[in-house]
Amino acid sequence: MTAVRIHEVGPRDGLQNESQVVSLDDKLALVERLADAGLRSIECTSFVSPEWIPQLADSDALAARLPAREGVEYRGLVPNLKGYERFRASGRVHRAAVFISVSETHNKKNVNRSVAEHFDRLVPVIDRARDDGVPMRAYVSTAFGCPDEGRVAPEAVVKLTRDLVAAGVSDVSLGDTIGVGVPGQVHELAAAIGELIPLERIALHFHDTYGRGIVNVQAGYEAGVREFDASLGGLGGCPYAPGAAGNVATEDVVDLFERAGIDTGIDLHALVETTAWLERDVLGRPLTSRVYRAEMGRRERHRQKAEAG
Amino acid sequence: MTAVRIHEVGPRDGLQNESQVVSLDDKLALVERLADAGLRSIECTSFVSPEWIPQLADSDALAARLPAREGVEYRGLVPNLKGYERFRASGRVHRAAVFISVSETHNKKNVNRSVAEHFDRLVPVIDRARDDGVPMRAYVSTAFGCPDEGRVAPEAVVKLTRDLVAAGVSDVSLGDTIGVGVPGQVHELAAAIGELIPLERIALHFHDTYGRGIVNVQAGYEAGVREFDASLGGLGGCPYAPGAAGNVATEDVVDLFERAGIDTGIDLHALVETTAWLERDVLGRPLTSRVYRAEMGRRERHRQKAEAG
Repeated sequence: MTAVRIHEVGPRDGLQNESQVVSLDDKLALVERLADAGLRSIECTSFVSPEWIPQLADSDALAARLPAREGVEYRGLVPNLKGYERFRASGRVHRAAVFISVSETHNKKNVNRSVAEHFDRLVPVIDRARDDGVPMRAYVSTAFGCPDEGRVAPEAVVKLTRDLVAAGVSDVSLGDTIGVGVPGQVHELAAAIGELIPLERIALHFHDTYGRGIVNVQAGYEAGVREFDASLGGLGGCPYAPGAAGNVATEDVVDLFERAGIDTGIDLHALVETTAWLERDVLGRPLTSRVYRAEMGRRERHRQKAEAG
Repeated sequence: MTAVRIHEVGPRDGLQNESQVVSLDDKLALVERLADAGLRSIECTSFVSPEWIPQLADSDALAARLPAREGVEYRGLVPNLKGYERFRASGRVHRAAVFISVSETHNKKNVNRSVAEHFDRLVPVIDRARDDGVPMRAYVSTAFGCPDEGRVAPEAVVKLTRDLVAAGVSDVSLGDTIGVGVPGQVHELAAAIGELIPLERIALHFHDTYGRGIVNVQAGYEAGVREFDASLGGLGGCPYAPGAAGNVATEDVVDLFERAGIDTGIDLHALVETTAWLERDVLGRPLTSRVYRAEMGRRERHRQKAEAG
């Protein structure tokens, strides 16, 4: 057991937001490299309809070819019962995950249903997973703010989290979908939820839109949360494209913890090599992790110095 | 009095690290725009030898033309007694600042003297300022880590800070020159220094090299520090150049505090407009503040939507 658990969401939450479609072979190579770097929890894909998210249209094929790795847990998103059945058919993905928003407007835009209606649709999916003995995560979106409704009441987040756990999910990941959260909110939410549910069942999922991914991870750690979602290189956002809003970068989270002597079990050097490969050979666009960019800068200076001397 | 004080170092610490030399008129426009945005403490230049830092070779001319603004305090760096005399001659800069590193290697590289030798050279400068009734800040570099020596002992930082205050400086800014610090270090240092010196005399100066500028500002605030150095747009670093290592961005610090209900007295909208101007009309290269980039992304999406119909 490491002191904190980092759940890698790059292959799913990251790649689904890329403008280009990454090949199946590259996706598999990415998952393999992440496992080699020490990630023990990797969200590989989403079993959504291919029309919804063309970037993840190969989810069945990907799931069928996932490499069996001791101690590595694969996860897949399931939007509904049909998605859950595809997840089960794959046989190689260990955990499933559903998603729901706290805010009505965001939920409506996402799945064209009210929060209550969507919750009712998730219940049979959660039931099926429980019957099958499959751990089921719930992603709670807009837990810190909504693009349309603004600040989200912590009471609503606490209620939804409690209802999801009561319905049978194994863990809940609270997502700051638009990256507006501040540390005080993280503390407030963790304290309120911690009174009802053991914090071992809570993960935090931050986006770095306003540069607060890392400060909110730190706040979550101080508040007692030990699982954090992150994406390699800060995948999913680009600072030079409109709508930049990547996940907090795995490298940045690993370095934050490791520098503080908190064991993540992850090899930062291997992560940096993987991001370099992804940037150069797969995506062809610069990735935004600060730790990655600093390391690339260090190497470039070293190279220039060697050439000069 | 605002709840926190943000000391803007962009015109000095930012521009001195830019590859190009910004014109005097643009520098003056920048200072004026910063004052308009609500900054009450602006480091305008460094009275160094023009051969040292060509980007700031116009310091005398700049100082002579600084606009008199009620409540705005201008500061200038003075490397030595000669620099201090130029600072005094200008008559328009309110505060001076000297700098020294904690680490021997860094100090040697910077000023070609040991820390003790450099300290001895600073004493007459600090004395002169005290005689003149001029508040003198000291910047303590490599307070969280040194590129050559690695981790810096907090005891050494505490000792140097205490010696500087005993010598007569009004305040000390502790700089994380290479951006390696973590929140635990900030807490440790603030607690140790707070036992000897009122924290009102301490400022913190973070670079965002590893994405920890904001988390360290937050840690400093929680530890009782109320003054933070920052630079507009994250000036001074570029993520696509080797050696990227900008100051923590003023916009990102302002948004961190304001979103938490902590008054900075600064108009974020005016900052964003200034960064847009600086990026487009002055530097011609993208600036890295996350808050700035998010706002630009929002505007671009809005524009595209309006065009689409």
